[in-house]
Amino acid sequence: MRGSLLVIALVTAGVPNMLADDGMFPMSELPRVNLRERGIELTAEQLFNPSEISLVDGICRVNGCTGSFVSDSGLIITNHHCAFDAIQKASTSDRDLLTNGFIAGSRGEEIPAPDYQVRITENYRDISAEVLSVVQEGMSFLERTKAIEKRRKELEIEAERQHPGLRAEAAEMFAGRTYVLFLYTYLKDVRLVFAPPASVGNFGGEADNWEWPRHTGDFSFMRAYTAPDGSSATWSAQNIPYRPKRFLRVQSAGVDEGDAVFLLGYPGRTARHRTASFLQYESRVRLPLTVQLYQWQIRQMEEAGVGDRSVAIRHASRTKSLANVEKRSRGQLQGLQRAQIVEKRLQQESELQSCIEADEVLRPKYGSVLRDIAAVYAEMESAGPLEIHLQQLRQACRAAAFGFAVVDAVHERAKPDIERESPWMDRNYAQSVQELKVSLRDWHPPTDVEMLSGMLRRLSSIPGARQIPALIPLTESEQICEQAAKRLIEGTRLGDAGFIEQSLGQTVDQLRATKDPLLTLLLDLYSSYRQLRELDKTREGRLSRLYGSLLEVKGQFLRTGFIPDANGTLRFTSGRVRAYSPADAVVRTPISTLRGVIEKTTGQDPFITPEPVLRAYGARDFKGFLHPRLGQVPVAILYDTDTTGGNSGSPVLNSKGELVGVNFDRCFEATINDFAWNADYSRSIGVDIRYVLWITGRVYGATQLLDEMGVALAE
Amino acid sequence: MRGSLLVIALVTAGVPNMLADDGMFPMSELPRVNLRERGIELTAEQLFNPSEISLVDGICRVNGCTGSFVSDSGLIITNHHCAFDAIQKASTSDRDLLTNGFIAGSRGEEIPAPDYQVRITENYRDISAEVLSVVQEGMSFLERTKAIEKRRKELEIEAERQHPGLRAEAAEMFAGRTYVLFLYTYLKDVRLVFAPPASVGNFGGEADNWEWPRHTGDFSFMRAYTAPDGSSATWSAQNIPYRPKRFLRVQSAGVDEGDAVFLLGYPGRTARHRTASFLQYESRVRLPLTVQLYQWQIRQMEEAGVGDRSVAIRHASRTKSLANVEKRSRGQLQGLQRAQIVEKRLQQESELQSCIEADEVLRPKYGSVLRDIAAVYAEMESAGPLEIHLQQLRQACRAAAFGFAVVDAVHERAKPDIERESPWMDRNYAQSVQELKVSLRDWHPPTDVEMLSGMLRRLSSIPGARQIPALIPLTESEQICEQAAKRLIEGTRLGDAGFIEQSLGQTVDQLRATKDPLLTLLLDLYSSYRQLRELDKTREGRLSRLYGSLLEVKGQFLRTGFIPDANGTLRFTSGRVRAYSPADAVVRTPISTLRGVIEKTTGQDPFITPEPVLRAYGARDFKGFLHPRLGQVPVAILYDTDTTGGNSGSPVLNSKGELVGVNFDRCFEATINDFAWNADYSRSIGVDIRYVLWITGRVYGATQLLDEMGVALAE
Repeated sequence: MRGSLLVIALVTAGVPNMLADDGMFPMSELPRVNLRERGIELTAEQLFNPSEISLVDGICRVNGCTGSFVSDSGLIITNHHCAFDAIQKASTSDRDLLTNGFIAGSRGEEIPAPDYQVRITENYRDISAEVLSVVQEGMSFLERTKAIEKRRKELEIEAERQHPGLRAEAAEMFAGRTYVLFLYTYLKDVRLVFAPPASVGNFGGEADNWEWPRHTGDFSFMRAYTAPDGSSATWSAQNIPYRPKRFLRVQSAGVDEGDAVFLLGYPGRTARHRTASFLQYESRVRLPLTVQLYQWQIRQMEEAGVGDRSVAIRHASRTKSLANVEKRSRGQLQGLQRAQIVEKRLQQESELQSCIEADEVLRPKYGSVLRDIAAVYAEMESAGPLEIHLQQLRQACRAAAFGFAVVDAVHERAKPDIERESPWMDRNYAQSVQELKVSLRDWHPPTDVEMLSGMLRRLSSIPGARQIPALIPLTESEQICEQAAKRLIEGTRLGDAGFIEQSLGQTVDQLRATKDPLLTLLLDLYSSYRQLRELDKTREGRLSRLYGSLLEVKGQFLRTGFIPDANGTLRFTSGRVRAYSPADAVVRTPISTLRGVIEKTTGQDPFITPEPVLRAYGARDFKGFLHPRLGQVPVAILYDTDTTGGNSGSPVLNSKGELVGVNFDRCFEATINDFAWNADYSRSIGVDIRYVLWITGRVYGATQLLDEMGVALAE
Repeated sequence: MRGSLLVIALVTAGVPNMLADDGMFPMSELPRVNLRERGIELTAEQLFNPSEISLVDGICRVNGCTGSFVSDSGLIITNHHCAFDAIQKASTSDRDLLTNGFIAGSRGEEIPAPDYQVRITENYRDISAEVLSVVQEGMSFLERTKAIEKRRKELEIEAERQHPGLRAEAAEMFAGRTYVLFLYTYLKDVRLVFAPPASVGNFGGEADNWEWPRHTGDFSFMRAYTAPDGSSATWSAQNIPYRPKRFLRVQSAGVDEGDAVFLLGYPGRTARHRTASFLQYESRVRLPLTVQLYQWQIRQMEEAGVGDRSVAIRHASRTKSLANVEKRSRGQLQGLQRAQIVEKRLQQESELQSCIEADEVLRPKYGSVLRDIAAVYAEMESAGPLEIHLQQLRQACRAAAFGFAVVDAVHERAKPDIERESPWMDRNYAQSVQELKVSLRDWHPPTDVEMLSGMLRRLSSIPGARQIPALIPLTESEQICEQAAKRLIEGTRLGDAGFIEQSLGQTVDQLRATKDPLLTLLLDLYSSYRQLRELDKTREGRLSRLYGSLLEVKGQFLRTGFIPDANGTLRFTSGRVRAYSPADAVVRTPISTLRGVIEKTTGQDPFITPEPVLRAYGARDFKGFLHPRLGQVPVAILYDTDTTGGNSGSPVLNSKGELVGVNFDRCFEATINDFAWNADYSRSIGVDIRYVLWITGRVYGATQLLDEMGVALAE
């Protein structure tokens, strides 16, 4: 900073603010976006073209994150926190890759990440009419939901038959209104190539998570492999690197304040089209309970890891992901209050309601839509505490999660394929079982005793829980909760892969005959869980129809088109590198630098900086990586694109579509993106490509990766 | 903020940075300051002219703070925290002026503040030669200090004889080198006129203290009175408002970013000319011990006040002042480390040492100066823990403070006047006794038991303390410490004004005969305290001579003149309204606004905003007080002048010398101002005149004060 205010502001002044907006555009909307006005020099066809090679062929989904191909040999850049699970699962207390980082000296040294999959979008088509054709007057809400679900599955199976080797997924775009069928390539042999130490990749930890300025090198490299014939295959020594149709060009010059950037990626879920009554449910029930239950689970896992690094490693991935959601939920609670989002939405809805009531044609058809939606959320609000605690019982306690999966699989597998829950359909079964087995590795029974005992204790004070027969004998008193948890966890074999494998092949009666105490409890609770699921589907059916109606009537009053809520499908968003003001008299400028890393370094976790970084900083070994105006190596950048979870790892692209950063977070005030986008507060955070290259090539000497990406290191 | 970055930066860009510097210029240096280059339109003579009326005639000292006359009837504006002691002492749990604020409806309702004095600088002259003439070769360091002290007192008495009604004070400017005799008017009838509620005047409390951005209305109005003939007098119903020679014009238009401002005031103490060895003593011993002992005392006082507002009120003033020093000390510790001040000073000293050693003439005379100074601080470092704990014994425990004052007074009053410690000389005695009596009012014995017991416990583990005979029987075990404290506090009459009055008139033997247990302890400890005092004077003598030599030899190598360290005498400092960057990618802009008050308001202490303020905000009742660019009522301003404690309440003056704010704090990074000024970090904070006027006139309707200041309220 210091004396550079003028420069910053002059650049900022050039930013045409009005073009940043909420918009996670599906590919189908791209032709309607004025790319040039947004500072992008590519055409919609250059971005996405199902019949030619286009930019999106260089983008992939990496589990729940986004990744970019950066070489013709399947090299992928994504976030450190997206590769975290792979790094953690490859770590032991003797070979602690989380702490030390990892560099594969050759392709042979790359580490398989068996629970990772890479997905590439190949094509899509609108299937709304085909899906909705199965809905009939007089169907109950549950029937409606089930009919739509079944039709989506049928269309998926049909498409997969037509396109062998591809996977089809029917996504709901607008609830109850529009559906799109996506065709994907799935790659199942994914390997870890390079990860910086967590003290770089997760610098600042939970203290800095969801905050700007950020000084985190949140990136890692992975590589996708295929069978020798190029087809998708699970790991094999014979596999060869995947040849993407297209890979992204790395632009080592980076970007500056005011520059246009755009992101392609797979944002997960947003709720921009939901009503005020939904937001009230979130702010009164779901978010506060999430904060409370996650804080407690995080504390349990942290305490278990004190003094035993191997236990800490086993809990690392889950702790990180819970902490992430916990802090986001706190941000959302604050944001809902501060930005008065509920009040604003209530205002809009009251205006809409007046319009409807003033119109004799609309009134009978739409007059009660908002009230009917509110009634669903009112029901969820009153049932929420019990339902959420029941769900958390089989989340917090990992062995209960394993047991539920087994019981659910066995029940579902007994049905015809098309009627099963999606994970247990033939086309998904192998992957689901694989994920289950990988997750067994981190099981730590003593932590599970605490989790189960704590959840039972919580359930014991919730009206309704004590009406579930299986829970009554376990929740009589605090002491009984503790004893029961100990007995159930110590007596179960659900942490054993062999037992799981065997159980998956059995019938319900055979499962009962094992007399495994925890498995028995889950068999007893299964009817409650099934009821919950049906209840969810009924609500989904009601809401799907009601939101469909709401959309219809809103469409008559609002001139602008709608952008559907994020749903894990490929989206485009654009903006500028841009400062923001989180509070009166405070401005945060949009490029953080290595100096800030040094300033924050205390030597105490999470603010440790590894020796090699300190040495390179001391030696001012920056050539080729300096930001010309700031005179420092940029670390992270801030921009006003519209992102949410799932955009982690998204490429940050300059006006020419070259890679200048990797998206990894939002600022605290932008956690409310999920509910509403705001020009003042909504900012996303990416690691700057110059930091990626400096850390990888200069500090850790993995110059082979820079060569592979075609980046020349300045000598 | 929002979209105004350009404007801010353009203004900032116009700021000639190089003119902000460390410089608390004494009046004698004003003719050498290029005022025009600093953006000030007044001449040195308009600022200070002993033979004519000048701007400084509108400035006064209010106890340890600075104040400004803002009407021809003795109306003074200073900080809320400077008037705090008066507000607190006038408060009861029934009539809680701290919580509710205070508006005197008429002059008759103004509340006397008996322990307040207002001081006005009338003239000064250099007396270095007269003082140093008494120093003779062969004197011991103690003799040297005592001779200088005595000479200063003689000169003061002589000057007071020549100028009846004025007080003379001989101030040391450069240790052991230069002395200036100041002539002051002292006004002893000071009254409280207006104080906003503490929730405005102390908004943000300790959380925001020493922080920017700040949203505190830290101002109050007082009034000075004289006898009907205009002479200084203690309170009397017949007294009349003081007629200052000059008062400051209030400029309700305020200032903007980039504008020149200057301050006049009475900065307390700085240590810019001290050596690295001094800074090491501070950072290793004095500052950490201060933090530790003050945190503990604050906690004791806070706990005592829980559930009893009357006790909380009695502790409020002392808690606030300790908390202030505690946080400042933490800031200084952080700043010393972060700005590498010790390292830089060591570097400078090593260069100076090389120069000295390279010069055959200088080497024998100055070769050991730095080492000799370091030897004094090394001694202080090793003796520090015992000495500081002994001093804190009679600070933390208030009754011990009262008892020590009595014992000291009785011992000193037995000496010839000129040889006494200054507070007990005839010319100061009445005021000292008055202050002692006022401080008795806040005494709370249960807190004192905790304080005394805690200090005894701490002393019991310090080598050396158990060699002091009076302490041995009190510190045998933790239990004994507690019992002793209880016995001493419950048995003492030192909290009783009558007993104090009577004791002050007695001999040492008569004091012993009272058999008051705590008074007896202080009589027993008195020889230790006297030894400490002599030791201090010996060190002062050594340092005074050594720093004198250091200054001589530095003067030969450095081209620039020196500005003496702050010493409570009148100083001028100038700068600009200016942003700063406390950390990488963070900028804090220099004008905070009412919107920020609302943003911070949680309804929980210290972030409560009173109803009348919320109402006026809701009604957008801002006319005449808005900042044109920000569209908000400005609350506080930030500027890069050079200030320290004692500058609290200093007028912030625009280029024409009009009042645009009242200085009240520094940002956290500027707590190191006491050791070194830094262009990047050193920023001071003032309440904006527009907020003062809005709160006083619009929100609380004290329009008579605005009328008195000649400010017209927009209708």
